[in-house]
Amino acid sequence: MRVVVALGGNALLRRGQALTAENQRENVRIAAGAMAPIAGEHQLVISHGNGPQVGLLALQGAAYKPEETYPLDVLGAETEGMIGYMIEQEMGNLLPFEVPFATVLTMIEVDPGDPAFQNPTKFIGPVYDEAEARRLAAEKGWSIRQDGDKWRRVVPSPLPRRIFEIRPIKWLMESNTIVICAGGGGIPTVYDEDGKLRGVEAVIDKDLASELLARDLDADLFIMATDADAVYLDWGKPEARGIKRASPAALQTYEFAAGSMGPKVAAACQFAERSGKAAAIGALADLPAILEGEAGTTISGAAKGIEFHRPA
Amino acid sequence: MRVVVALGGNALLRRGQALTAENQRENVRIAAGAMAPIAGEHQLVISHGNGPQVGLLALQGAAYKPEETYPLDVLGAETEGMIGYMIEQEMGNLLPFEVPFATVLTMIEVDPGDPAFQNPTKFIGPVYDEAEARRLAAEKGWSIRQDGDKWRRVVPSPLPRRIFEIRPIKWLMESNTIVICAGGGGIPTVYDEDGKLRGVEAVIDKDLASELLARDLDADLFIMATDADAVYLDWGKPEARGIKRASPAALQTYEFAAGSMGPKVAAACQFAERSGKAAAIGALADLPAILEGEAGTTISGAAKGIEFHRPA
Repeated sequence: MRVVVALGGNALLRRGQALTAENQRENVRIAAGAMAPIAGEHQLVISHGNGPQVGLLALQGAAYKPEETYPLDVLGAETEGMIGYMIEQEMGNLLPFEVPFATVLTMIEVDPGDPAFQNPTKFIGPVYDEAEARRLAAEKGWSIRQDGDKWRRVVPSPLPRRIFEIRPIKWLMESNTIVICAGGGGIPTVYDEDGKLRGVEAVIDKDLASELLARDLDADLFIMATDADAVYLDWGKPEARGIKRASPAALQTYEFAAGSMGPKVAAACQFAERSGKAAAIGALADLPAILEGEAGTTISGAAKGIEFHRPA
Repeated sequence: MRVVVALGGNALLRRGQALTAENQRENVRIAAGAMAPIAGEHQLVISHGNGPQVGLLALQGAAYKPEETYPLDVLGAETEGMIGYMIEQEMGNLLPFEVPFATVLTMIEVDPGDPAFQNPTKFIGPVYDEAEARRLAAEKGWSIRQDGDKWRRVVPSPLPRRIFEIRPIKWLMESNTIVICAGGGGIPTVYDEDGKLRGVEAVIDKDLASELLARDLDADLFIMATDADAVYLDWGKPEARGIKRASPAALQTYEFAAGSMGPKVAAACQFAERSGKAAAIGALADLPAILEGEAGTTISGAAKGIEFHRPA
């Protein structure tokens, strides 16, 4: 089987942890341990988030020379190198030397006419007091929004249209190379009026970027690994039930949390509908069982309605 | 022909320029313009330096949280992403959309017993006053050395032994993908006592790393692009003569500047001797003429002694 695994942010950094190299590596090691068992049996392509890492690089740059900070596309490229390196090295340490790896820098085209550019919604970087946020917004041309009782920068989150490196990624996968790519949702790029490709200050949703990747690669299974062990109905209530298997049509009659499970369910449904294959959402540690359909939530057009896991 | 081009530091940043994203991109655009004409006719693999960029990332990290700075291997991975991104995007803007590109993160094995680890020689990062350098050395365990009237950190520069991603790079090259890899000499790694691969605080000479890359890829020509238009005898004197073509044996009877042309001549001779193919040293702008043997210095076992360019 061809499997695309999208690693959620918590696979790289647990909530509240300091973003040190050591902490990142420790988490990547755990993630690698979860993915290694399936690498021997399947063609595996891995994508990952980069939110905290991009935020850190932006802070580092601002602390050094605020007038020479690097744009988001360049910072995104840096994080693809950094995170890809850790994943590649730690997975390599768990698999036979013969297994080839490649971390491939990934640029993704977005539409400059995407309505997201008129309505930036994606929080990025640290929180500020309102006055400081307004000062930075005026100075740097940022959009800002309130986030709880603090303020943060927001950037557009346009839809991914085309993965430029898809052919090399596919060729490598067909040679049974484990490919790490599309980190952080890929580097968002647009063609300007001169027909030149350039980066833009935006962040592509990493689940949607990974969904496009999985579809372009004709993946048999697209897994979003997160900190929940499944998608739940009535989450947070006594009657909460974990979904084992569902059709996109059945899932779409429910609402899921906008900032967390909602986008994942939407990406999974999109993949199932457009590819005719299955998507799954679940915990990284359950990866082998997710492949068997025994853990996590599998979303597939072949499912009939909604089937629940037995309560533990 | 299979051609490996190693971009010297000046291809990414001219002496004295501030290391802004804009300046880097402007230089990369010029480099891309020089390489694009040969990409249509040859299989092309590109490597590059990263010295100033690694130095900048180290400074940024230290300015933000000095107690949480990232190790050199992680910073090197970041620069492979950043510089690879700029090269890939700018070259892509000059070539037909159909030409595939891949920037591949590259780890290179070094020998933990390499004598370089006992004798760190490679300057890295900014200059300090002696007192500040000694304080940092004590605090961080750095080795330091005098550089002119200032002091700098030095790290070991071990020999490259093995490029881990060589198979994916070769497969991509064979699919006529333009591959950007081995940036900054590759990320230096060693197997520790538990047989696990890990990064080390070292810098592999980028010309030697590129030489190994070219040899592993069975390249027909290995070009080191630099700011000199050729290797000269009697450089800096009125009788200076630019070398057009030379055998390794003939070149090795002369001495070249230790910090600049010497290592390039050594890498070129090593390539010519071990591969039986040709290496060349010259200016990026002359790339097409270097391929014809009409510009730069070509080093090849097939050359008889030393042949000079006609004086301009």
